[in-house]
Amino acid sequence: RINGDRLWDSLMEMARIGPGVAGGNNRQTLTDEDAEGRALFQQWCEAAGMTMGVDEIGNMFARREGTDPDALPVYVGSHLDTQPTGGKYDGVLGVLGGLEVIRSLNDMDIKTKHPIVVVNWTNEEGTRFAPAMLASGVFAGKHSLDWALDRVDAKGKRFGDELERIGWKGEEKVGARKMHALFELHIEQGPILEAEGKDIGVVTHGQGLRWIECTVTGKESHTGSTPMHMRKNAGRGLALVTELVHEIAMKNQPNAVGAIGHVDVYPNSRNIIPGKVVFTVDMRTHLLDKLNAMVDELMERAPKLCEEIGVAFSAEIVGQFDPPAFDEGCVKAIRDAADRLGYSHMDIVSGAGHDACWINDLYPTAMVMCPCVDGLSHNEAEEISKEWATAGADVLFHAVVETAGI
Amino acid sequence: RINGDRLWDSLMEMARIGPGVAGGNNRQTLTDEDAEGRALFQQWCEAAGMTMGVDEIGNMFARREGTDPDALPVYVGSHLDTQPTGGKYDGVLGVLGGLEVIRSLNDMDIKTKHPIVVVNWTNEEGTRFAPAMLASGVFAGKHSLDWALDRVDAKGKRFGDELERIGWKGEEKVGARKMHALFELHIEQGPILEAEGKDIGVVTHGQGLRWIECTVTGKESHTGSTPMHMRKNAGRGLALVTELVHEIAMKNQPNAVGAIGHVDVYPNSRNIIPGKVVFTVDMRTHLLDKLNAMVDELMERAPKLCEEIGVAFSAEIVGQFDPPAFDEGCVKAIRDAADRLGYSHMDIVSGAGHDACWINDLYPTAMVMCPCVDGLSHNEAEEISKEWATAGADVLFHAVVETAGI
Ligand SMILES: NC(=O)NCCC(=O)O
Ligand SMILES: NC(=O)NCCC(=O)O
Repeated sequence: RINGDRLWDSLMEMARIGPGVAGGNNRQTLTDEDAEGRALFQQWCEAAGMTMGVDEIGNMFARREGTDPDALPVYVGSHLDTQPTGGKYDGVLGVLGGLEVIRSLNDMDIKTKHPIVVVNWTNEEGTRFAPAMLASGVFAGKHSLDWALDRVDAKGKRFGDELERIGWKGEEKVGARKMHALFELHIEQGPILEAEGKDIGVVTHGQGLRWIECTVTGKESHTGSTPMHMRKNAGRGLALVTELVHEIAMKNQPNAVGAIGHVDVYPNSRNIIPGKVVFTVDMRTHLLDKLNAMVDELMERAPKLCEEIGVAFSAEIVGQFDPPAFDEGCVKAIRDAADRLGYSHMDIVSGAGHDACWINDLYPTAMVMCPCVDGLSHNEAEEISKEWATAGADVLFHAVVETAGI
Repeated sequence: RINGDRLWDSLMEMARIGPGVAGGNNRQTLTDEDAEGRALFQQWCEAAGMTMGVDEIGNMFARREGTDPDALPVYVGSHLDTQPTGGKYDGVLGVLGGLEVIRSLNDMDIKTKHPIVVVNWTNEEGTRFAPAMLASGVFAGKHSLDWALDRVDAKGKRFGDELERIGWKGEEKVGARKMHALFELHIEQGPILEAEGKDIGVVTHGQGLRWIECTVTGKESHTGSTPMHMRKNAGRGLALVTELVHEIAMKNQPNAVGAIGHVDVYPNSRNIIPGKVVFTVDMRTHLLDKLNAMVDELMERAPKLCEEIGVAFSAEIVGQFDPPAFDEGCVKAIRDAADRLGYSHMDIVSGAGHDACWINDLYPTAMVMCPCVDGLSHNEAEEISKEWATAGADVLFHAVVETAGI
């Protein structure tokens, strides 16, 4: 068993970097706080006897050697970046859980056949630079490196420039590494495990996602002196599409979601009718056909709704992944580990996207989940118990060690 | 008659300061561009033999002496600040039209009995710092100076600090001046004069306004892993209230308007369900009872709509003025001037708020309007013809000189 107290202490220490305003974290990707979090992780990895590799997109790979010089490493990890109103565990638990696997192996003086690499993927959250899981996506060949480096944030800063600025652009080619397998521990970010009273979620599948960046174009004009019939109010386009997205998600129940999290109104002046609104629709479900049908319905109905009120609608997909099915062998390793350790568990579908979803396309991959209070995540009040974290890391430890061989 | 070419040249020269991105202006109040515009205006006033006074809120008063030492001045002016996507004429025409009155009097070597003061009011637009017509409101005793100086912009900058920073905080007590009368020339900002083919609008009344800053509070959570029934999506509150405001305005036709121009979504991340949305409703009509009834309906129905979808609604009035009725004598001076000069004219209600509306509560006041193309304003494409500007300034000249006496 791993050392739950040590894991918890490390989680709390990492959470001191980039504190939020309400007890959580704001440690967004490629900020000074991200750099500080990376440096602390590196220091811990070196203290645990690992050597660090960094690739051209800033992914960090801390390696513990195995006994078989020809064996491919087993990878374990997640991400250290957070949402602007992020919690202390989303991503961090997976990285520090991986570190705890190594520390426990050191404590027990166990050598594995395969090397073990603990990974911190760059920009998993996708808030500052869309899409999410950007760097694991480049690793998996979903995006080109140049395209990724050219992403810009809301302030017009380029991903590649920010990566260099914080000093974490490495030399290693992205995706050059081969993996024996990959495991990711993550909090559920939803309410199911807690409601069912289970310690462990064995993730068999994930939801697919589409991020659709929409632009409604009207015409800026005076809120006071423009008669109602002459208005082209782009804000009404946002309103109608907000409700349309909700309606589409509701009629695809169960297991479909949709919402708009990002909205920019132009010129955003109290006495100017919005001339343009840009916003991103997030739609997800676990069946590819249903997901595509949801997007098709949006793309068909939104332009009509907007046309009826005299504004124009256009849209572009800015992030997407299809519903993943994880590797049966890796999933079994997790289920067996939970059984062996005596933790209650259930199979579960991941509601969120994860770096593991991209890697799953290339190498045998699976995920372990632990519950989180009220299913709350992407909120500073995100909370888990030390027991839940410990159970998750215990299962991760067993699955990784079994796969890496002794 | 005034010199239309000179007026036009000055308008074009002022428009070079704080250019927008599409041919208009972005010279928002208390920015470096505002300071530059003020300096140019001061230079022009001094070249025309006037002396400048500046009060503690940055209102500029350029005075041309009269022949009667005991006579109160006739005031004429408007504002030089613009919207973020502002035109070249909104406000500026009234200030430079006032300057043209003085320049023409100088050309003709006419001395008036009453002094004439050309005024540039600070922060008429209210975009950067709500409410609109802030400094004329302090002058008219509607707000205290301290309250005004404490307004903050979206970046948290204080009005008073920004006023000192740009170097335009004067010593004169705000509101200390007494006026014989005030005239303001302004573009219509609506489509009526152009549609009716009239050169001049004689403004008899204005619309009243309410700015209602609304906060919808939901709960930030993950867009992917939060089941639909557990969501508290503040963005849906915005959507429902956007359509409610439209509905209320439509059912109060004719002569009522409503829209939401300003929206801030928190935390504005693609994969976080909005936990909070702050936005400002702008409602106007020319009848006080109707205006209050519109606001009452919003305040009654919006909380219920929000409650039904599990989010909370709260609201606060952040700007308001009641429908003004201008001084009959001043209105007649304008109508007579248009008749005398042979310009076609009609009585009109101002759709927008103006500094003249506040001063009207204290001293005899009226407004002249000239048409603008397609009724478009608060848009960089705002346009007027040189002929329209000339006609407006001619009428202003006659009304001011008649009121100031020779
Ligand atoms: N786990 C997580 O929140 N990832 C961000 C990508 C997503 O929105 O699902
Ligand atoms: N004239 C003008 O646009 N004033 C700004 C205040 C308002 O919104 O009416």
